[in-house]
Amino acid sequence: MCHRARMIQKSEFIEQASKLLGSRGFTSDPDLVSPWLTDWRGRYTGAAIGLGSPASTDEVSALVKLCSQHEVAIVPQGGNSGMSGGATPDNTGTAIVISLRRMNTIRALDKDEMTATCDAGVILQNLHEAAEAERLRFPLTLGGKGSATIGGLISTNAGGTQVLRHGTMRAQVIGLEAVLPDGQIFDSLTPLKKDNRGFDLKQLLIGSEGTLGIVTAATLRLLPEIAGRTVIWAGLPSITHARQLLLHSQKMAGDRLEGFEVLPAHCLSAVLDHLPDARAPLGEPYPWNALIELVGDADTIDSVAPLAEAMLEKAFEAGTIQDATIAASESQAEAFWQLRDSISPAERAIGPAMQHDISVPVDRMAQFVEAAVPAVEERFPNSIAVAFGHLGDGNVHFHVLAPKDTVPGEWEMGDGKKISGFVHDLVTEWDGSISAEHGIGQMKVDELGRLGDPTALSIMRSVKQALDPKGLFNPGKLVPPE
Amino acid sequence: MCHRARMIQKSEFIEQASKLLGSRGFTSDPDLVSPWLTDWRGRYTGAAIGLGSPASTDEVSALVKLCSQHEVAIVPQGGNSGMSGGATPDNTGTAIVISLRRMNTIRALDKDEMTATCDAGVILQNLHEAAEAERLRFPLTLGGKGSATIGGLISTNAGGTQVLRHGTMRAQVIGLEAVLPDGQIFDSLTPLKKDNRGFDLKQLLIGSEGTLGIVTAATLRLLPEIAGRTVIWAGLPSITHARQLLLHSQKMAGDRLEGFEVLPAHCLSAVLDHLPDARAPLGEPYPWNALIELVGDADTIDSVAPLAEAMLEKAFEAGTIQDATIAASESQAEAFWQLRDSISPAERAIGPAMQHDISVPVDRMAQFVEAAVPAVEERFPNSIAVAFGHLGDGNVHFHVLAPKDTVPGEWEMGDGKKISGFVHDLVTEWDGSISAEHGIGQMKVDELGRLGDPTALSIMRSVKQALDPKGLFNPGKLVPPE
Repeated sequence: MCHRARMIQKSEFIEQASKLLGSRGFTSDPDLVSPWLTDWRGRYTGAAIGLGSPASTDEVSALVKLCSQHEVAIVPQGGNSGMSGGATPDNTGTAIVISLRRMNTIRALDKDEMTATCDAGVILQNLHEAAEAERLRFPLTLGGKGSATIGGLISTNAGGTQVLRHGTMRAQVIGLEAVLPDGQIFDSLTPLKKDNRGFDLKQLLIGSEGTLGIVTAATLRLLPEIAGRTVIWAGLPSITHARQLLLHSQKMAGDRLEGFEVLPAHCLSAVLDHLPDARAPLGEPYPWNALIELVGDADTIDSVAPLAEAMLEKAFEAGTIQDATIAASESQAEAFWQLRDSISPAERAIGPAMQHDISVPVDRMAQFVEAAVPAVEERFPNSIAVAFGHLGDGNVHFHVLAPKDTVPGEWEMGDGKKISGFVHDLVTEWDGSISAEHGIGQMKVDELGRLGDPTALSIMRSVKQALDPKGLFNPGKLVPPE
Repeated sequence: MCHRARMIQKSEFIEQASKLLGSRGFTSDPDLVSPWLTDWRGRYTGAAIGLGSPASTDEVSALVKLCSQHEVAIVPQGGNSGMSGGATPDNTGTAIVISLRRMNTIRALDKDEMTATCDAGVILQNLHEAAEAERLRFPLTLGGKGSATIGGLISTNAGGTQVLRHGTMRAQVIGLEAVLPDGQIFDSLTPLKKDNRGFDLKQLLIGSEGTLGIVTAATLRLLPEIAGRTVIWAGLPSITHARQLLLHSQKMAGDRLEGFEVLPAHCLSAVLDHLPDARAPLGEPYPWNALIELVGDADTIDSVAPLAEAMLEKAFEAGTIQDATIAASESQAEAFWQLRDSISPAERAIGPAMQHDISVPVDRMAQFVEAAVPAVEERFPNSIAVAFGHLGDGNVHFHVLAPKDTVPGEWEMGDGKKISGFVHDLVTEWDGSISAEHGIGQMKVDELGRLGDPTALSIMRSVKQALDPKGLFNPGKLVPPE
């Protein structure tokens, strides 16, 4: 098609979309569109024909049908807080962004059944608060909870710090509504605890990053509120000891173990440098630190503090830990968690780093870290490799910090890229995943194409082709081209 | 193709299959094949070219490739204990049955990680025993545990009596291996607790009844053994009271509530007539009965018996229950469960019945039963409708017993069929499922086509077409034709 014909077609589409959704529902004004064309980390900037902000599932469906008719690509967007550029369009300017932010109603919260039915645009923090008001809780949380939306969390199968006990977003979704590439509305919102009527299509949509459908609403499970928690900080000689402590804690605490995070000395020291008011939990630095959270409900809460004492006593006797302390108050517990949650900003303050969100089988993570850290540092002299995070999930954030006095930008595109390839190769050798919780988006799609299992990739492509034959749903994301 | 050409092609296929797998691995001897051509309930009998019994995943793959080349359809079969004819070929005689029974090794059992990796042909009971030997347990069980295989349980996303707390088979599967329609081996056996590398293909295979792939192995989660249980039998005035008791029990017992089953007076009396040595748990009959199991681990076991007492006391005070008893010994607990597990055989002894495995949203099940039982009995005079089972899962077995002196066979094909249509219509009106746990198989494929959501059906057909373009995997099952 010649340039002129394309321009005419584009303006026709804009006219029809504006007519369909009104001025609040669709705009092509660059000033209004441009804030949503860059991901929050500032890594990717794209272009778009316009921004759709439908107010209902029916409006999403109508807009998708219009896009299908005009062959306009669609990039769905929730809170724009993704880590892999999955919600940012490419720079061809041929797509529209569909933002779900206007759809932000909690449609229902059933206290007896402990479920909440939310529009896709409901912000995680708001769901937390609505659940708490009913003495319930939604058992998934993460750093971006003030902006991340339910639809985005589902589309990326988000993780966070409570996966150990409660699973990822997939485990929280009991009903789903989505608009498919042909504009049809798939509605399985009504939660049936048991339903064996064929393929579980909701599972296919969870984690599909908007490439198969746009999540418009979901029914989520809630849990009773917790009655209290006990938070432990332990110092350990190695990550292998941390793994022993994890097994020991799981055995002793069972379901009362809510979180188990690890961080090496380098991370803690970076955080202490970065946060002027922060204090080290223990008197001395140790090679590794574990942050452990135990929780109790009304019935079991009295057992939690004595359990923590007993756990630590045995671990100390066995030589698993070198020192440990139990948070004496809720504010101290918060302070321990703040140390953990500040690792990323603290490291950004030091200088450029390549960040890898990886998993290997849970039982091999300690070995992996002990092998991978020196391997990276040897291969890329003066870089510093650190691994921290969710040991209990076999998922660490494996960051490689640039050598001092590196020129940012240049390093990421040069050595940084080589480092990521090296780390991803290692992870693949260890039967692991190059994306444990952040998703593939546009950031890792080439790496998935390079390292993914050919059988899995071929099924993914077949399914994508079957559901989105025109390839209009979030092109360039997640599904590597052949 | 003319008859003669087809016969030559068939004999060529048999020759090549025999060569590929040897005499233990493939047979076309009717005496050896015929036992596997009828489902265990004797409802369906089909015909087959032969029976493949591969000894390894590679052999499954090679046989599937041969079938694909010769365009021979495949009916995968596990323990042949399915409820919907999903493992029985049609009567065209153009398919082979592939039995997974020879692949019956527990490949690994990791005590620390609490996982077991099993061949598809491992029998459920054997997995239970292997787990128990390590002081662990596999938290899914059902009547057919002595013959049901892991592969079959996964392919039908089986349920059972512990779903309330532990979920269906889907929730137990953390890794999967399957052979796809083109013979490729999909291997995601290595369990990664977090892995966001695209569509979760293992979820697509779970519950797909062999229409998308043949499950050859799985990695399953195990749990610590329980330290003990307390089993309660309660008499109630109505199923609405049973629902109140369920909510009350969930609130008080939380995770210690392992099972909650209900049965009406008719079922208990049928069981007592059927089992000469059985005794009624309570002195008098009540309109409804609830069977409740509480469990405890080493830490919580001491709290379970007092909890049961406190739960019943409050329920009695609130007028929720009319009477209740706590099993005084493990053998009495077993006897209570035997009453529940004997409903099906007891009813079969009475006469013909149409059995429906249905679910509606958990919070509406009591209302549904109260509306549906009289509706059915009014519409079909002299029939008796009973609902029993997993109230906590919103899943009951809704059986309609034929009027006395009915001619079996005739009734099923006449009024029985009408009754099933009527029940399925009702369930659909109530946003429920016509198959909660037994699957669709060949038994319900027409009903799914008639009542299924058109959007869901169209996605199912697209996915089926994409993964199995030749339509050779378990044709006529699960996926309704257009």
